[in-house]
Amino acid sequence: MPAILKHDNYGKSKVRVVKVTREGSLHKMKEFSVDISLEGDFEDVHRTGNNEKVLPTDTMKNTVYALAKKNDVNTVEEFALYLSDHFKNNNNQVSTVNIDIQQSTWKRIHVEGKEHDHSFISGGNEKRTCSVRQNDINTEIESGIKDLLIMKTTHSGFTGYIKDQYTTLKETTDRIFETVVTAKWNYTNEDVDYNFLHDNIREEILTTFAKHDSLSVQQTLFAIGENVINKFKDVKEISISMPNKHCLLIDLSRFGMENNNEIFVPTDEPHGLIEATMGREK
Amino acid sequence: MPAILKHDNYGKSKVRVVKVTREGSLHKMKEFSVDISLEGDFEDVHRTGNNEKVLPTDTMKNTVYALAKKNDVNTVEEFALYLSDHFKNNNNQVSTVNIDIQQSTWKRIHVEGKEHDHSFISGGNEKRTCSVRQNDINTEIESGIKDLLIMKTTHSGFTGYIKDQYTTLKETTDRIFETVVTAKWNYTNEDVDYNFLHDNIREEILTTFAKHDSLSVQQTLFAIGENVINKFKDVKEISISMPNKHCLLIDLSRFGMENNNEIFVPTDEPHGLIEATMGREK
Amino acid sequence: MPAILKHDNYGKSKVRVVKVTREGSLHKMKEFSVDISLEGDFEDVHRTGNNEKVLPTDTMKNTVYALAKKNDVNTVEEFALYLSDHFKNNNNQVSTVNIDIQQSTWKRIHVEGKEHDHSFISGGNEKRTCSVRQNDINTEIESGIKDLLIMKTTHSGFTGYIKDQYTTLKETTDRIFETVVTAKWNYTNEDVDYNFLHDNIREEILTTFAKHDSLSVQQTLFAIGENVINKFKDVKEISISMPNKHCLLIDLSRFGMENNNEIFVPTDEPHGLIEATMGREK
Amino acid sequence: MPAILKHDNYGKSKVRVVKVTREGSLHKMKEFSVDISLEGDFEDVHRTGNNEKVLPTDTMKNTVYALAKKNDVNTVEEFALYLSDHFKNNNNQVSTVNIDIQQSTWKRIHVEGKEHDHSFISGGNEKRTCSVRQNDINTEIESGIKDLLIMKTTHSGFTGYIKDQYTTLKETTDRIFETVVTAKWNYTNEDVDYNFLHDNIREEILTTFAKHDSLSVQQTLFAIGENVINKFKDVKEISISMPNKHCLLIDLSRFGMENNNEIFVPTDEPHGLIEATMGREK
Repeated sequence: MPAILKHDNYGKSKVRVVKVTREGSLHKMKEFSVDISLEGDFEDVHRTGNNEKVLPTDTMKNTVYALAKKNDVNTVEEFALYLSDHFKNNNNQVSTVNIDIQQSTWKRIHVEGKEHDHSFISGGNEKRTCSVRQNDINTEIESGIKDLLIMKTTHSGFTGYIKDQYTTLKETTDRIFETVVTAKWNYTNEDVDYNFLHDNIREEILTTFAKHDSLSVQQTLFAIGENVINKFKDVKEISISMPNKHCLLIDLSRFGMENNNEIFVPTDEPHGLIEATMGREK
Repeated sequence: MPAILKHDNYGKSKVRVVKVTREGSLHKMKEFSVDISLEGDFEDVHRTGNNEKVLPTDTMKNTVYALAKKNDVNTVEEFALYLSDHFKNNNNQVSTVNIDIQQSTWKRIHVEGKEHDHSFISGGNEKRTCSVRQNDINTEIESGIKDLLIMKTTHSGFTGYIKDQYTTLKETTDRIFETVVTAKWNYTNEDVDYNFLHDNIREEILTTFAKHDSLSVQQTLFAIGENVINKFKDVKEISISMPNKHCLLIDLSRFGMENNNEIFVPTDEPHGLIEATMGREK
Repeated sequence: MPAILKHDNYGKSKVRVVKVTREGSLHKMKEFSVDISLEGDFEDVHRTGNNEKVLPTDTMKNTVYALAKKNDVNTVEEFALYLSDHFKNNNNQVSTVNIDIQQSTWKRIHVEGKEHDHSFISGGNEKRTCSVRQNDINTEIESGIKDLLIMKTTHSGFTGYIKDQYTTLKETTDRIFETVVTAKWNYTNEDVDYNFLHDNIREEILTTFAKHDSLSVQQTLFAIGENVINKFKDVKEISISMPNKHCLLIDLSRFGMENNNEIFVPTDEPHGLIEATMGREK
Repeated sequence: MPAILKHDNYGKSKVRVVKVTREGSLHKMKEFSVDISLEGDFEDVHRTGNNEKVLPTDTMKNTVYALAKKNDVNTVEEFALYLSDHFKNNNNQVSTVNIDIQQSTWKRIHVEGKEHDHSFISGGNEKRTCSVRQNDINTEIESGIKDLLIMKTTHSGFTGYIKDQYTTLKETTDRIFETVVTAKWNYTNEDVDYNFLHDNIREEILTTFAKHDSLSVQQTLFAIGENVINKFKDVKEISISMPNKHCLLIDLSRFGMENNNEIFVPTDEPHGLIEATMGREK
């Protein structure tokens, strides 16, 4: 009973590229990190080491550089589709192309009250993301936001939950709610404005988070998803991941002091992890 | 058309615990990092904030501590199953329990040629892993190894691949092959010796990697998987991920020097990523 | 010849604390990570294990929490001084107290065009820093900025440098200049406005970086320091560290394409590291 | 009162290089990460952008590759001195050269009970380190070990310390002691066996840590330093840093269970930090 190859994929990860485009003295700059992964007819390479169907991952890297030059990179989505088309159309042995891109969030430096034309400051760890999965039949595209770190210092509680022999958590109607949001959404149609949706979904996440009277992380997460689904008809589904980065209230009574929700210890581990996907009825 | 909840899960991640057991002056010590995630009847908590079916993630954390005391933690697999059973059996609202554990690889310090009875040294970043997914119907268990960093300095080549307009890679019959292996396997039956299989699969990975005349990362990866499938009848499938951590040959001819595969630059990004799953015919 | 103890210090690192203060519904929130280190009469604890002069590091941690409650934490500098005074005044065995604090850079979320009163978004990796070193004779205070990631896409060149047998770098009058600034400054007097200086030195760094026609990282770094020294008489010295995070121009001619400073590969390693301290004549 | 340049240095950091040497089929492999920093007559470059005295950091990088070829790299110390000599002797404008190297700790893979001749496995995060500081007058060399992660599960206590209003720590005569050691030592003379000293100092650290009945981290740290000073006459001073990576005893009595030093939570932050330098009387 010989071993069989049940699944395989290969590619290049973390291909970083910066593209600068110029309109006179005004520079635009975008930074991407691209992951490429191919599936297809690669049984031979695994079994015999025959590489005649292997597009080297080094070539994938070069292709990202060349296609970043050729493409306008107006949106990360268009760049991902452009890359995916290239690899699918030029490699008959490939059945599926996966492209995943993270775009860094640079902003312009303000100098004397105005946006500078060629100087930029990092927008932090937040990334704009895009995944494309293309095979012979269709092309799926998913847009997203990653590592959006936010906190609210009130209007968050957690009560009425199960108590068992291992429960020590105290109910609270006023706690800190800190999370680092990852969101991914796909589309109901192909004729969408990627930048408009990215910017407005991001704003909807921030606004709902700020305004929501949270009874649980789950409820706030769902409220965000529900608002996105209700407001943006182009969005088919949205998946949201919201780790609960606990800020623990310190017991200051041991030192003869009151702690009226003033002093907290932020912690990285362990952390809650709350995830859900919201869609729309057909 | 109201938004619908299509999927959800929640839990606690990175619950770290060290357990010390004593046999006289001989101490055994194990360190785990546990992730727990539950799926089930949680529509209400998302829509209304009614938490009456919510087992708090803080309680999950406490449960890990308590069950680490109750269980022998002979193997990471038994501990994961013990945790999974607890959460499944005590929460009717839960349809699926997911437990993921990473075990750190501590070794005993040698003092005057002998293993010390209560002092330990880190085995590095390598982890032993286990995932359990339990629902009403069945319980799936997967064991693994993570972050096993290895290198061979010869008996690796890469030739005969596709050349296109973006190819710059030179063919080579002698290169460095560095990778950091992640492997996961499941089982053909329930009556298996987890420790024996972990130790022997790990040795098989190292031995095959060392001895293989590699024509590609894919071929070596498959050889490892094939050997595991052929030697260990208890293993049903094994998935292996082998990023190609490129060590680039430096062009020293610019400085009037030859570089006979002596001087390389190790790089972290971009890196190749080669993945496959090997199984057995039924 | 017995071993002698030539120097020692001990303390607690990464004591994280969030303080929320309320003015009606308006919340202010600050997040700090505090390092404390003490020097003094600790020979006995090292030689004999007599701990009677040891303030436990666990108590240092509790003290940070309690003093965060007691102090207004108007500025990171006042909080650092308050902590330092406490440890120096309450521990006769201590000759020197070192306090190092990193403050995270949270900003308010904008909701419907206005700053929200209790919701915040991370300002990224940038930190505001403060170091205090206090002994019987004096108290030194140093303020700073850490991990300010910036990039300019033109008005940076590098020419006229030494060429030797190992030179391969090409001269350029137009390159990308990316760096992550760390700056630290101390004061000519004790009566200074810490917040004003932090905000204005930060703006001076950004403005000078953006406007400077850079002939080298060194020249730009010095221009920043010179401007700070000239504009802010309260600043005695400023030390600046500017790693050169290279963005390498890709050779697209191999693919029959021109690369007119459009396509670059950002790299993390190796990186240049340029550091200098600027002061004022007495 | 113009700004003055009080100090400056520049160089290249994280220049990674792997060197493979062959004795027939037996391969030796070493991996280094090199930091270079120069001080000297660089006022002009800072003030005017005149780069005629600037050795580019890109050239420093190339020099590391070329000199890794030329040098035997028998020890990290010899390689660091070789690099330092090169930069000092070929650059009249340089007053001081700083070389810092971290060597990765690869070990041979065992195949069928024997060390394989060209396959290696990572020794973990532990690094062997070396710093050289060379000026016109002398050359200082310091060797070291970094990130040696160790734990003992008993024979460690902490009692008799100061109690004040912020004390909550309980005294204990039996706790876990986990630390990640950094040690650096210099030499009484120039005629030393670097490899012998590295290996034996490392063993002394591990042995003393394992065997010591610890009344405090300070006492154990000093015992290690004292033993090194007493046993190795070639060592002039040794500086040791031992963060106290707390493993906290969980209160299981809340769940009706005893915790006889069995179940602990390892934590990364906050952590203690204990540091000292031991020397010898003249």
